Amino acid sequence: MAMSRQYSIGVDLGGTNLRAAAIDREGRQLGKISGRTELSEGRDAVIEDMVEAIRGLQGQFGVEDLAGVGVAVPGFIEMKRGLIVGSNNLRQFDGFPVRDEISARLGKPVILENDANAAAMGEKWLGAGREVDDLVLLTLGTGIGGGVISGGRILHGAVGMAGEFGHMTVYPGGNPCGCGNDGCLEKHASATAVSAMAQLLKLGDQLSAADVFRIAQSGESEEARRARRIFESMGRALGIAIGNLVNIFNAPLYLLSGGPLPAWELFAPALLSEVERRSFTYRNAKTRIEKAALGSEAGLYGAAYLPLEEAGMAAVAP
Amino acid sequence: MAMSRQYSIGVDLGGTNLRAAAIDREGRQLGKISGRTELSEGRDAVIEDMVEAIRGLQGQFGVEDLAGVGVAVPGFIEMKRGLIVGSNNLRQFDGFPVRDEISARLGKPVILENDANAAAMGEKWLGAGREVDDLVLLTLGTGIGGGVISGGRILHGAVGMAGEFGHMTVYPGGNPCGCGNDGCLEKHASATAVSAMAQLLKLGDQLSAADVFRIAQSGESEEARRARRIFESMGRALGIAIGNLVNIFNAPLYLLSGGPLPAWELFAPALLSEVERRSFTYRNAKTRIEKAALGSEAGLYGAAYLPLEEAGMAAVAP
Repeated sequence: MAMSRQYSIGVDLGGTNLRAAAIDREGRQLGKISGRTELSEGRDAVIEDMVEAIRGLQGQFGVEDLAGVGVAVPGFIEMKRGLIVGSNNLRQFDGFPVRDEISARLGKPVILENDANAAAMGEKWLGAGREVDDLVLLTLGTGIGGGVISGGRILHGAVGMAGEFGHMTVYPGGNPCGCGNDGCLEKHASATAVSAMAQLLKLGDQLSAADVFRIAQSGESEEARRARRIFESMGRALGIAIGNLVNIFNAPLYLLSGGPLPAWELFAPALLSEVERRSFTYRNAKTRIEKAALGSEAGLYGAAYLPLEEAGMAAVAP
Repeated sequence: MAMSRQYSIGVDLGGTNLRAAAIDREGRQLGKISGRTELSEGRDAVIEDMVEAIRGLQGQFGVEDLAGVGVAVPGFIEMKRGLIVGSNNLRQFDGFPVRDEISARLGKPVILENDANAAAMGEKWLGAGREVDDLVLLTLGTGIGGGVISGGRILHGAVGMAGEFGHMTVYPGGNPCGCGNDGCLEKHASATAVSAMAQLLKLGDQLSAADVFRIAQSGESEEARRARRIFESMGRALGIAIGNLVNIFNAPLYLLSGGPLPAWELFAPALLSEVERRSFTYRNAKTRIEKAALGSEAGLYGAAYLPLEEAGMAAVAP
């Protein structure tokens, strides 16, 4: 059963789903295990599920050939200590030494990484960013995450908290945020913000971003027009933030991923027009703003890349 | 006269002043030449003045021992081609191959760099950032410039335009900017913005930031209170921008330099309170926001550092 090919395991520990994949050094997915993150059963049960998934893949593809494990999690990471220090989705893990716990159980090196950083790395390795050394990724979901690849590596900052684009202030005095700020990008441009705007415009109280997208596509009714204005508003907020990021990083590539991506045609024009107006750099330096390519697999690939990179084993994407 | 000690020459080509200094590999200033930038006499005359200043220092400290020349200029730089591509202060140089022109005349390597980037490097080498590998500098003047040191090196971005913090949008719909945007940081927090606010508050039509500072310090008069509100407003705009930068970079150190620094006690409280409120990262990761240490010499030192670094000759600050 065991193959004589070195590989690593990427784990994506989300608030809802827990996935683990064995990925070889050229980025081929050898196998994958998916399940739910059973937060209601407590932290130890989730750790146990994670270790079991990893062991399952190890059994299939060989203990010897496993270079290490990369774990992508939502929230702030303290890189040195391998801790999650702030995550709305994984509160039970706050301050818990996730990295060392898993590493001790498996006897393999484990790298803990923020999920958006891992996704940015995945896109750089195998996705939309293969041909650049610098890119900026924004992940649109319940909140908005971010990752920066600079010189081919994740920009971590002092303790690993760099890239928190969801809490950039785009509208001082704007919508209040649980972080204590107001006008945070994610309160004006996340999937959750789309739902809230739908409520404000009396389109419905429990609509998902996908529901609002469907309404927006339903022709020339008053409801459809209102729904389209929601995506324009989302695009403007994203444009203010991305305009700032272009001025700050002058990266060649900015990527967006996440649930609202199907609505690209509805929010991208407003986004691009804001960036165009707000960034001299955008107008003068070749800058692409595009959809990410790997979807929800990006974090899994990026997480798997990290132990391979650490071991000097990762291959350039074919 | 010539000393047998290797050194480099840093040049700071501003819109008003032209300075050149010979600096050794430990950061000691061996000699300096200062003059005015005679823009009215045309580009070639300014280049000639620059070359003459460099030759003067070369004559004093030895042609052999000169590792190279670093030139700091305001505006956008295209690093690869060594061009200034956008500078409000040096319009005559737009698209002119400054680097190659000087290099050809001197027969020495020349590195062209944005002035705020050079200042950030100077602060990292010899100033307030000696003990960190990552820092972010904002230079407050007629406009607002910025520089980022990441892993001990200047963050350039794709073509060298990274760090343009002056054109970050802090107030969408705010004051219009010559760059085409509105609400740019530098239209709400530069020395020029302080003057404009003084006019709006009827304190006077031609007041410099230093004038407004003097009024602000003049006790409890209505004018003094108004002048203090100007610096608070400046501090809030800076706080929005720096809060975003903290969320983006998670750097351990953010520095401010420039003319308005003496008013620190008047603008810093509002600045820090905005950052505190707007950045979870600031509240959870050790982050210092401080005055830069080298004043207007930072760019000169940073420019001199670049050819030393290129030649592998720069020494760590003592």
